[in-house]
Amino acid sequence: MLRLTFLGTSAAQPTIRRNLSGLAVRRERELFLVDCGEGTQRQLITFGAGFDVAAIFFTHFHADHYLGAIGFLRTLSMQGRTAPLDVYGPRGARRVLETMLFAGAERFSFDVRIHEVKPGDRIRRDGCTLVPFETDHRVPSCGWTLEEDSRPGKFHLEKAVALGVPKGPLYGALQRGEPVTLPDGRAVRPEDVVDAPRRGRKVSITGDTRPCAGTAIAARGADVLVHEATFGDDEAARAVETQHSTAREAGRIAREAGVGRLVLTHLSTRYDHAWQTLADQAREEWPGALDVASDGWVLEVPLPE
Amino acid sequence: MLRLTFLGTSAAQPTIRRNLSGLAVRRERELFLVDCGEGTQRQLITFGAGFDVAAIFFTHFHADHYLGAIGFLRTLSMQGRTAPLDVYGPRGARRVLETMLFAGAERFSFDVRIHEVKPGDRIRRDGCTLVPFETDHRVPSCGWTLEEDSRPGKFHLEKAVALGVPKGPLYGALQRGEPVTLPDGRAVRPEDVVDAPRRGRKVSITGDTRPCAGTAIAARGADVLVHEATFGDDEAARAVETQHSTAREAGRIAREAGVGRLVLTHLSTRYDHAWQTLADQAREEWPGALDVASDGWVLEVPLPE
Repeated sequence: MLRLTFLGTSAAQPTIRRNLSGLAVRRERELFLVDCGEGTQRQLITFGAGFDVAAIFFTHFHADHYLGAIGFLRTLSMQGRTAPLDVYGPRGARRVLETMLFAGAERFSFDVRIHEVKPGDRIRRDGCTLVPFETDHRVPSCGWTLEEDSRPGKFHLEKAVALGVPKGPLYGALQRGEPVTLPDGRAVRPEDVVDAPRRGRKVSITGDTRPCAGTAIAARGADVLVHEATFGDDEAARAVETQHSTAREAGRIAREAGVGRLVLTHLSTRYDHAWQTLADQAREEWPGALDVASDGWVLEVPLPE
Repeated sequence: MLRLTFLGTSAAQPTIRRNLSGLAVRRERELFLVDCGEGTQRQLITFGAGFDVAAIFFTHFHADHYLGAIGFLRTLSMQGRTAPLDVYGPRGARRVLETMLFAGAERFSFDVRIHEVKPGDRIRRDGCTLVPFETDHRVPSCGWTLEEDSRPGKFHLEKAVALGVPKGPLYGALQRGEPVTLPDGRAVRPEDVVDAPRRGRKVSITGDTRPCAGTAIAARGADVLVHEATFGDDEAARAVETQHSTAREAGRIAREAGVGRLVLTHLSTRYDHAWQTLADQAREEWPGALDVASDGWVLEVPLPE
């Protein structure tokens, strides 16, 4: 399972239909949050995304992207969580989070482990790696790529039978990529019966940013690129000024990166009802699969083959 | 107009239907907030209570009662508010609010004036006074009473005519409580033509507290008492331990204070759907008007006569 639940798709200010930034990423048994704006804990409840968060990955420390962590961690503590919580963010993470998370708080019931990261760091989680990538915003910032480990290639039972490999542990060894010797002394190589490893899924999430090479490179071949699209063409100058992206610019990055699907999020309140405009403008640059996220929308990312 | 809009009626943790503590009090042209839990800004939008907040009155500084102010003030600043915002709270207000409101914030577009108050202080607003009263919780805390100024008594036109008071400015003087002299030299006292001043409305709001004399005294004769009722009888021991109230205890305080209407709020998540139980238990102590608040519920407080 690799499931994205969009918890908040508004930029800067919430609206009736869109909360501040937050994205739940459930990969198999682990739940991650990418950003955690005010009200995220209630969105997690409302959309049934779960509270068993293993780690939070912040893209930057503007209020609309992190304030919700303060209350959420207190709630987890009230609920008696004991599992440590890893919290990752770009430069400055430690100072902001130590001030805001722990101010006035009684002791939490669990450890909060704050990690400052830089582009290119590789954070290992169960069966996948999180990689922060360079973005271009007004404060230290990064995007996040989740890369699943590759899966073993398909095992061709008929080939193994034809080669006389006896059923049992030798099958497993070949599947794991180990050459084996049969009882009659013949050698069988993994590639004789197993296809090449299959790549895992890849999802890149920008946070707030101007369109930039850092994203295009990091998202190369991603199954899904979640790109901010704060503005439409009519506000292109404002996008430059505030270091955000237009939907059209997000489309351009998706094309450069060659992704499988582009998801636009982080909409300025003025596009709250006019999201179709953003989709139309992005489509002029990006012919592929496209969605404009809304709060509560769930995107299941299928295995590539 | 005196209108209470309940923005958040859950205790400690939000639920799908109830957000964290927040109450909007609109009195004529001024909008006040009593407490401002996480997500309050979005509740204000959702329930159309307005963003033109003149002052915020905090009952105490547990996270579920104030975290929402951080994001809300940033939103007001993004919107370019210029009117100063008065913020009141019990001992400790300054330290908590200065840390949390301003940490990592760029300069706000308006002044935030933080005031620490103690029971008995009288805060004058347009046509009313806010009075903090003593409550009993685990940290410095207070409740808030809003007292409207008294209104002039009813003017009896027929009496004025019978006494030969000429139509015009003398009517206004009498209405304002000033004695007047008629053209023929006779004196007319206000009480000859005007009834005694009529009391304004009075609303008392507890915040988190054990049932206590401070509340019963402060709420004496209030039109509305908003009392926390975190627990039911089954959790009476836990109410003592955590320094909260049961619904039954809130009913008892309403009876002692002789209020016009009791409103229960701040429900523990376990009563989210079982609020009727709390109402039933409070009714055994309190025979008068009773409501259990829910998010978005609007209570118009009518003039007493």
